[in-house]
Amino acid sequence: MEKGPVVYDVIDGVAILTLNNPEKRNALSRQALESLRTRLDVIAQAPDVKAVIIRAVGPVFSSGHDLRELVDGKEEEYRSLFALCTDVMEAIRRLPKPVIAQVHALATAAGCQLAATCDLVVASENATFATPGVRTGLFCTTPGVALSRAVGPKKAMEMLLTGTPISAREAERAGLVNRVVPADRLEEETMALARQIIAASAYTLGVGKRAFYEQITLDRPRAYEVAQKVMVENTLAPDAQEGMRAFLEKRKPRWGN
Amino acid sequence: MEKGPVVYDVIDGVAILTLNNPEKRNALSRQALESLRTRLDVIAQAPDVKAVIIRAVGPVFSSGHDLRELVDGKEEEYRSLFALCTDVMEAIRRLPKPVIAQVHALATAAGCQLAATCDLVVASENATFATPGVRTGLFCTTPGVALSRAVGPKKAMEMLLTGTPISAREAERAGLVNRVVPADRLEEETMALARQIIAASAYTLGVGKRAFYEQITLDRPRAYEVAQKVMVENTLAPDAQEGMRAFLEKRKPRWGN
Amino acid sequence: MEKGPVVYDVIDGVAILTLNNPEKRNALSRQALESLRTRLDVIAQAPDVKAVIIRAVGPVFSSGHDLRELVDGKEEEYRSLFALCTDVMEAIRRLPKPVIAQVHALATAAGCQLAATCDLVVASENATFATPGVRTGLFCTTPGVALSRAVGPKKAMEMLLTGTPISAREAERAGLVNRVVPADRLEEETMALARQIIAASAYTLGVGKRAFYEQITLDRPRAYEVAQKVMVENTLAPDAQEGMRAFLEKRKPRWGN
Repeated sequence: MEKGPVVYDVIDGVAILTLNNPEKRNALSRQALESLRTRLDVIAQAPDVKAVIIRAVGPVFSSGHDLRELVDGKEEEYRSLFALCTDVMEAIRRLPKPVIAQVHALATAAGCQLAATCDLVVASENATFATPGVRTGLFCTTPGVALSRAVGPKKAMEMLLTGTPISAREAERAGLVNRVVPADRLEEETMALARQIIAASAYTLGVGKRAFYEQITLDRPRAYEVAQKVMVENTLAPDAQEGMRAFLEKRKPRWGN
Repeated sequence: MEKGPVVYDVIDGVAILTLNNPEKRNALSRQALESLRTRLDVIAQAPDVKAVIIRAVGPVFSSGHDLRELVDGKEEEYRSLFALCTDVMEAIRRLPKPVIAQVHALATAAGCQLAATCDLVVASENATFATPGVRTGLFCTTPGVALSRAVGPKKAMEMLLTGTPISAREAERAGLVNRVVPADRLEEETMALARQIIAASAYTLGVGKRAFYEQITLDRPRAYEVAQKVMVENTLAPDAQEGMRAFLEKRKPRWGN
Repeated sequence: MEKGPVVYDVIDGVAILTLNNPEKRNALSRQALESLRTRLDVIAQAPDVKAVIIRAVGPVFSSGHDLRELVDGKEEEYRSLFALCTDVMEAIRRLPKPVIAQVHALATAAGCQLAATCDLVVASENATFATPGVRTGLFCTTPGVALSRAVGPKKAMEMLLTGTPISAREAERAGLVNRVVPADRLEEETMALARQIIAASAYTLGVGKRAFYEQITLDRPRAYEVAQKVMVENTLAPDAQEGMRAFLEKRKPRWGN
């Protein structure tokens, strides 16, 4: 593995982005955010990458923003930092490849936002999630954007107003986490989930992810309009024709890309 | 009971729509969808029908679209098929009568969409729910419209990206299912729920269902505007005046329609 | 404590609003709603109040609208009554101070709406929640606005169509309740939660609450635009600078207001 705040690796079609600055509790510093953005741009173009896992090393998954970058600074610096953070989060959503957060420990503030932004979250039994900005006077308003789109408003408000961490199991019940697994099986289970997903056509995964996030904020009739168009295009695509024929012929499909 | 892909019956004010093509796993073929649409139009006008149960016979609740209608076809055919499917789903939502899905087995792809679209879902312990289109190259984008309005986005994404079925209990925890009951009590419990609901005024049920789906996609202040108007109209209606008077006089109400 | 349908008290920076008309099951009569609105206006301006608890005395938390005010009346009276009710609910949402419902018993119809509208809900094991208007011919459409923004649509529809009360535990699983506690610890636990929250900066709590409800109904990209602006302003505020410095210096913050 390379060095730097975010390490990039590819294993069997799965890009592994590792937050690798444990001494700084994997803070999403400007440098780390820029590194994430660059990696995500590379991944978007990489034909050999079909899915992404975001993980971390050290005692914390991510502590969120580096508070040193938020004191005694100028308005313009804060503005560009929060814009950069949103850019990274939106890049994860726009990436036409599934992104899985592999959370082994505390994911807090923008670190919780990062997990909430990924398409899926696999958490160790030891993982916890918090939005404690209120305690340092800086309400977790941007993390709240991602959090309140993953869990109900009462749970989001409780996390935002109290700052108290919730356990992986609570996060699962609330809808923030897909699966809770024993700590020693976290890496294996996350990779297994990624492998299962990328057995599908990369074309189909990309079309489906994009359409999902497009339709989800529309009212239902407009959501159906968008979704129907996508279904027609998807049906006409070679991978869908091959996939459905393979199903009808009871054989394995051969994806085109 | 009559023959055909969808059988129609009325018992004590409850219309029973039965998917009755077990050899084709109750696929929502063009013929089945057209039959559902026709039945729903009839039900909308039928004064003796106060609620609807959608159930199925055979080893599968519904397998969704008939894949044979989605291979080697023309764009226009696909377009009209998906439009027809949306028509049926929206007809269920617009129908001013409660619709309950009675799910005894696997509800998959557009079959899962059908269950998610009903106002309420009662499931047998043996029921499962899946959106596995990704495996055949055709992402379940239109089923995802209904699914992602019933369950949280992380759970919806997991079902859509993996295609793995979830159990009735999981579906209940996720918000897709209202009640899970033993297989041998499914019919009885669903009918009991329908009977309980139709003890209310048909006028009130119709006004309430329509207003609920109208307000739910609006922002809160506009939702209240719509809801207040409906409340005033509803309060002035004879059934509400009778219902409240009956309550205050500690007697049973006599509904006007 | 004073007399009247709503009693106002302040304990250690927490305003306590007590529904105090047990003989009328704490109905949200016009008089009670006007009293709540007046109290909330006072609280909005009171520098010594940092949070609010809404509680009740007697066998019922609140029975909702007084049905006597909804029979044999005029359209204009109904219109102004529902508008007043919405005013109270929206005043709770707009109040830049956290509001916690302390629910010890049945919260029904507009009483359920009141609980659902508060930022957080602490419930006794004996509490129950219902929207039973359908039984008296007046569908709980306005309560449904608040309810369907706290719980999923299938659960909301079940409560609205059947009128059956759900237990505090069910309400917790559905997302309507944050914490269920033994009846004899309800007051203490609710106050402890309020105390924990108001240890934070009043400025930060106000900014955060307002931004949360502003962003939650927007689509994600617009939500981030709003949230980023708030983050920049919040970062520049004296309480945030003090709070972050205190954190970095491992000391307690001293809030400015």
